[in-house]
Amino acid sequence: MKNLIQNTNKNVIARSDNDVSTSSHTDIAERKIGFKSSPFRGGFRRGFLLFFALLSLFAPEIKAQTKATWIWYPGDYEIWLSNKMQNRRTERGSFFPPFWKLDSHYVLTDFHKDFNLSAPEEAELMVEGQYNLKVDGKAFSGYPKRITLPAGKHRISLKVYNQGSVPAVFVKSANVVSDTSWKVTYEDKEWIDASGKTSDISATQYVPAGAWNFNEVTSLPSQFHLPTKAQKAVTTDKKAHSIFVDFGKETFGFVKLHNVIGKGKATIYYGESKEEAMSTDGGELVDQLEINQPQNGDITYDGSRAFRYVNVVYDDAVSMDEVSMLYEYSPVEQRGSFKCSDEQINKIWEVSAYTMELNTREFFIDGIKRDRWVWSGDAAQSYLMNYYLYFDSPTVTRTISALRGKDPVTSHINTIMDYTFYWFISIYDYYQHTGDKTFIQQSYQRMQTMMDYCLARRNKDGLMQGLTGDWVFIDWADGLSKQGEVSIEQMLFCRSLETMALCADIMHDGKAAAQYSSQAKDLKEKLFTYYWDAQKHALVHSRMNGKPTDNVTRYANMFGIFFNYFTEAQKQEVKKYVLMNDKIQKITTPYMRFYELEALCAMGEQDYVLKQMKDYWGGMLNLGATSFWEEYNPDKKGAEHYAMYGRPFGKSLCHAWGASPIYLLGKYYLGVKPTGPGYQTYLVEPQLGGLKWMEGTVPTPNGDIKLSITTSQIKLSAATGIGTIRVKSKTKPVCSNATVKMVSAGLYEVSTQKGKDYTIKYTAI
Amino acid sequence: MKNLIQNTNKNVIARSDNDVSTSSHTDIAERKIGFKSSPFRGGFRRGFLLFFALLSLFAPEIKAQTKATWIWYPGDYEIWLSNKMQNRRTERGSFFPPFWKLDSHYVLTDFHKDFNLSAPEEAELMVEGQYNLKVDGKAFSGYPKRITLPAGKHRISLKVYNQGSVPAVFVKSANVVSDTSWKVTYEDKEWIDASGKTSDISATQYVPAGAWNFNEVTSLPSQFHLPTKAQKAVTTDKKAHSIFVDFGKETFGFVKLHNVIGKGKATIYYGESKEEAMSTDGGELVDQLEINQPQNGDITYDGSRAFRYVNVVYDDAVSMDEVSMLYEYSPVEQRGSFKCSDEQINKIWEVSAYTMELNTREFFIDGIKRDRWVWSGDAAQSYLMNYYLYFDSPTVTRTISALRGKDPVTSHINTIMDYTFYWFISIYDYYQHTGDKTFIQQSYQRMQTMMDYCLARRNKDGLMQGLTGDWVFIDWADGLSKQGEVSIEQMLFCRSLETMALCADIMHDGKAAAQYSSQAKDLKEKLFTYYWDAQKHALVHSRMNGKPTDNVTRYANMFGIFFNYFTEAQKQEVKKYVLMNDKIQKITTPYMRFYELEALCAMGEQDYVLKQMKDYWGGMLNLGATSFWEEYNPDKKGAEHYAMYGRPFGKSLCHAWGASPIYLLGKYYLGVKPTGPGYQTYLVEPQLGGLKWMEGTVPTPNGDIKLSITTSQIKLSAATGIGTIRVKSKTKPVCSNATVKMVSAGLYEVSTQKGKDYTIKYTAI
Repeated sequence: MKNLIQNTNKNVIARSDNDVSTSSHTDIAERKIGFKSSPFRGGFRRGFLLFFALLSLFAPEIKAQTKATWIWYPGDYEIWLSNKMQNRRTERGSFFPPFWKLDSHYVLTDFHKDFNLSAPEEAELMVEGQYNLKVDGKAFSGYPKRITLPAGKHRISLKVYNQGSVPAVFVKSANVVSDTSWKVTYEDKEWIDASGKTSDISATQYVPAGAWNFNEVTSLPSQFHLPTKAQKAVTTDKKAHSIFVDFGKETFGFVKLHNVIGKGKATIYYGESKEEAMSTDGGELVDQLEINQPQNGDITYDGSRAFRYVNVVYDDAVSMDEVSMLYEYSPVEQRGSFKCSDEQINKIWEVSAYTMELNTREFFIDGIKRDRWVWSGDAAQSYLMNYYLYFDSPTVTRTISALRGKDPVTSHINTIMDYTFYWFISIYDYYQHTGDKTFIQQSYQRMQTMMDYCLARRNKDGLMQGLTGDWVFIDWADGLSKQGEVSIEQMLFCRSLETMALCADIMHDGKAAAQYSSQAKDLKEKLFTYYWDAQKHALVHSRMNGKPTDNVTRYANMFGIFFNYFTEAQKQEVKKYVLMNDKIQKITTPYMRFYELEALCAMGEQDYVLKQMKDYWGGMLNLGATSFWEEYNPDKKGAEHYAMYGRPFGKSLCHAWGASPIYLLGKYYLGVKPTGPGYQTYLVEPQLGGLKWMEGTVPTPNGDIKLSITTSQIKLSAATGIGTIRVKSKTKPVCSNATVKMVSAGLYEVSTQKGKDYTIKYTAI
Repeated sequence: MKNLIQNTNKNVIARSDNDVSTSSHTDIAERKIGFKSSPFRGGFRRGFLLFFALLSLFAPEIKAQTKATWIWYPGDYEIWLSNKMQNRRTERGSFFPPFWKLDSHYVLTDFHKDFNLSAPEEAELMVEGQYNLKVDGKAFSGYPKRITLPAGKHRISLKVYNQGSVPAVFVKSANVVSDTSWKVTYEDKEWIDASGKTSDISATQYVPAGAWNFNEVTSLPSQFHLPTKAQKAVTTDKKAHSIFVDFGKETFGFVKLHNVIGKGKATIYYGESKEEAMSTDGGELVDQLEINQPQNGDITYDGSRAFRYVNVVYDDAVSMDEVSMLYEYSPVEQRGSFKCSDEQINKIWEVSAYTMELNTREFFIDGIKRDRWVWSGDAAQSYLMNYYLYFDSPTVTRTISALRGKDPVTSHINTIMDYTFYWFISIYDYYQHTGDKTFIQQSYQRMQTMMDYCLARRNKDGLMQGLTGDWVFIDWADGLSKQGEVSIEQMLFCRSLETMALCADIMHDGKAAAQYSSQAKDLKEKLFTYYWDAQKHALVHSRMNGKPTDNVTRYANMFGIFFNYFTEAQKQEVKKYVLMNDKIQKITTPYMRFYELEALCAMGEQDYVLKQMKDYWGGMLNLGATSFWEEYNPDKKGAEHYAMYGRPFGKSLCHAWGASPIYLLGKYYLGVKPTGPGYQTYLVEPQLGGLKWMEGTVPTPNGDIKLSITTSQIKLSAATGIGTIRVKSKTKPVCSNATVKMVSAGLYEVSTQKGKDYTIKYTAI
């Protein structure tokens, strides 16, 4: 598959098969289509100017037909950058790093490219690290920055050592440019014999280089940082030795103190809630400053923090005028949109989008107050939401690569068994949405060793059970058992094996594909043999000592629906006896509500889910939420909502997994989803779910799908793929430029092509 | 085993079992005993002053009873430092890094120590990296440099992130000091549940911290560099635009240009030989300088190089007065010595010691001109020589750890199959000489995964054969076959399995010990079934397609002798038909001469070997060698000696493996070797080999063994262990303070204790 159009400035690697240069010249024109600024950046749809301003900061304009970009060993930059990001967490002024193994980049890597030139040409070079440069194996002296590439067939190679940051190279001549068509290795094995002959049996394994969007020689990967912009407080309450400010909504960045003078201490208390910022001993984020400023001046604190409220308290001998901030953000493009007849749902979508914006940083993180780490289960949902909001593939692949780290595998991803499985599943999802085989090629070996780790940890019945050192997480839920062989873990494991089979197929690794398929099939059978309880009409929660428990929870049952593991009859049973059954323990995290509501949507319960959304997310909005929370329990009162982990303000009030309405509304109301990898083919199955009308945009790798839906009309305009619109209608729908086909009583299909506009008149059932 | 005395400033980790602090107070007194400066540092035995001057640079004096030292995750500093060192090679001004995988340290590590104090005490802290500090799991705010440790039982922990250099900590209070009794991990897995409770099933694996000799808070490990001292040229030949200097012997360091003025180019041509320094296009080492110095001043070139001669050629517009150098060296203590009645042998020993001195740097390297890398086969010999020269265990363990790197194992060590086996065997040797179990504990896991790699590469007959990507090296020898299943590889593999069995025993891993033993036994049987040729009275060189070849080489046959794999009868056969047989291809590298002469010595051929030594090493001396070479072929003439790898000056004229007389003279003439780990018991079997007299010192972990031997008298004074002196004498030897026991006709044994002097009168046979 080769993509013809690229829409964002950051998805170059992710969505092209082998050669990105052929399509690069369309980038700029294409970027103008469908751009929206994020809600934070002055409401929606501010337009193009800001975007290009950001673009020039972030990904300099592409000038040449062939595009040079900084390259590295794939995965290395992702690991290095995630180390930087994940080590920014603090808790009350203490450094708070992750508790799992952090890997490092390869410190010595060897890059090469074979080229064929009709005439010699000048090339410029830039390297991050100590390096040598060779043409056809012959080294140049010193560290050249400019060389003449000879005419004819030759090989240019660079070998780079860098301990502190990632070995990376940039090469640019008229026809030879560093890009992902270069090959790279971390052990070239180029030994020589006593006569000086280089080994011909080294069998060095080269992989395609990794890259992102560092397209100018001066855009050093090691110097990357997210952009910021100034932002003022909405209200300020200045007292003798303190300033208390409210930025009007949840935000993230660097606090700036204005016109500071004097010598003494200042303390910055941050709060996602007013109560937290007012608490001098209970808040999660506190920074201490030693001020020694004889001359009046501004101070920007160099640690980025999450907050809505800031309380700055300072000594007698210190004074200051004002507190503002620098908002730090990832300049991803918001291509997806949703609007409907229900203003509360619109607000929920907007706050969800803002929640995603705040948590979309160098990587998709869990929450901006804490942990600011990359968590696989959280990220798996961010990817899905991303496909309906940004379709920024590089942030997905960066996050997946960072989560995986390197061999050897010494624990589950984030130490959590289920998070390992979500990691596999997210690759399945990624391929479905993007059709990107290059990423599969880059990741396959590490997928295999990760799967080897899992397979080696099966018990005698071939099931996964928490071993010492494994965190079986599932969900934050009171009294939830993690003991024995939990059904949801087997189900996720089964889907992981299916992912491996899919990827093995893509890698033409037929033997492995057959093996993974057979392992998946075997496990799926066990899932039903061991856990399906006909009396309970459901999968039970777990087995203990080889016997199923009586406990029924929602987890495996909801996944079974949208994984399509159940028969139709089983789905209906599960819906009735589990999903719609109030006696089954309720889910209180937006994290698992994501899948619960997805399962209900997949069962056509859009009306019910819309009410649930209004109730649950609307409930947070009613409590003044400006971003969605890590957990929400309507039974709690006042500041009780802020507590978690035994700490009064332990809960994150801006957690990525809170943003699921973006996904649900895009996939199950607008009803758009890929049916072939990368939206080569896709399905549109609109469900108003009680709304009068809705309209929106769903981004895809090669252009947007725009929809406008009422109870009597569906309008579609799509820049990509072969679409199938599936309409429920009392009478046969009418479409002037497409054939309408009846599938079954009351169900019709309209097939669409890219680049055309369609209007379908129908009569809602 | 716990050592009671420690002799050098650098062997703290290596030779103590669990707790080093108990013996530390004896360090200073002990260091004064038996110190000798290296030959370079102004001839032998210059004395104590210089040593203490060096010591203050390198390992500041220890003041407290409990000794604080910088600690890190074991192996990490070794990997990091070896990356630095191995990336210093250049070839004619081009950066020339290794061709194997370089690993990196863990960027995030967690240290802790449980302590019990009767009263609170102040502790100072220093950390390399971003860190948090906790007592009993409760974090301090910020980055404290000084805290009060509470009375009672508590745990102090530090978690450190550092990408560019190794996370390291230094803690010092009256009773709590950072040392190898601290525990460290790279994944603490300290997750918490929703209530804030830390996991009690994390099963975190902690290992004892690594350390070296950074015993002051200000001795930052990341800032380590070897000391240097000024050295002048012996002769200078100054021309219009050049200065040609001779430093009188092989040396290493930084060239210094004096009173430079002007603007223009200068080129430094280095030469181990005069011819190399005179060659403008053929030398291995050349540096280009751009001089822009309006004011007269000195310039020291910042790249360290190997040379005896330097030719500096500069532009018209540049002038300079003089060329000198800064000699860079490792301040290890030369404890071993050897003197005898043959002045040529004395010279050989001295030049060997100097060759070792030059190649003993941050690690034991192969050669100082190139590769300046750590090669396992070369290093294995350096370790053995070290036991008779410095007994500097930290340089041994650093080198072993650096060679191993980290998991996953992606190739043989240095890509060479035999070098993987020497790596195992060197651990066997190390344990024999030092008795250091801590190092085994620190290394065992990586030994196992390295062995797993080997075991997985056996062919269907259970033998090792070069697979794609494997370099089967053996030796530099014309036409030597590396095809099929080479016997020497199986023999080294067998010894490696025996090493694993030994270490598994030390680790109380009985199951693994039994398995490795059985695998070794099985392989040893195959060695004789498949390779022993009764007609040829030898092991043949290899098998091809399951059939033994006709070829007999020295390799497996000489190892079989000192590995003691042969029966006495086989040994005699091999000696006659292989070792003393001129029709068997000769060995031309000092590398394999090391083992060849060792085998002959083990067969009692000291007379013969002495002549060989005088012939071979004496041959190099006759050609003007001031250090011993990578390869020596007496048949070559003039500058032919300098060529190798198809390059006119490709040969290293200062190669560690050239220094083997140190080992041979110590082990097989003075005749001292350990019989119990760490010289708890040892054997002294003097063999004059035709010399009139000899005297010398053999260092051991706990003190020196001093010997003086003539044809009628043996004097021994040993600070350590239970010795057995084995004497061949016509009549029963006489010793006033020990019992003399007859072993067999003409062979007597005298048992000695530490701290006493013994004089044995005997009559040489």
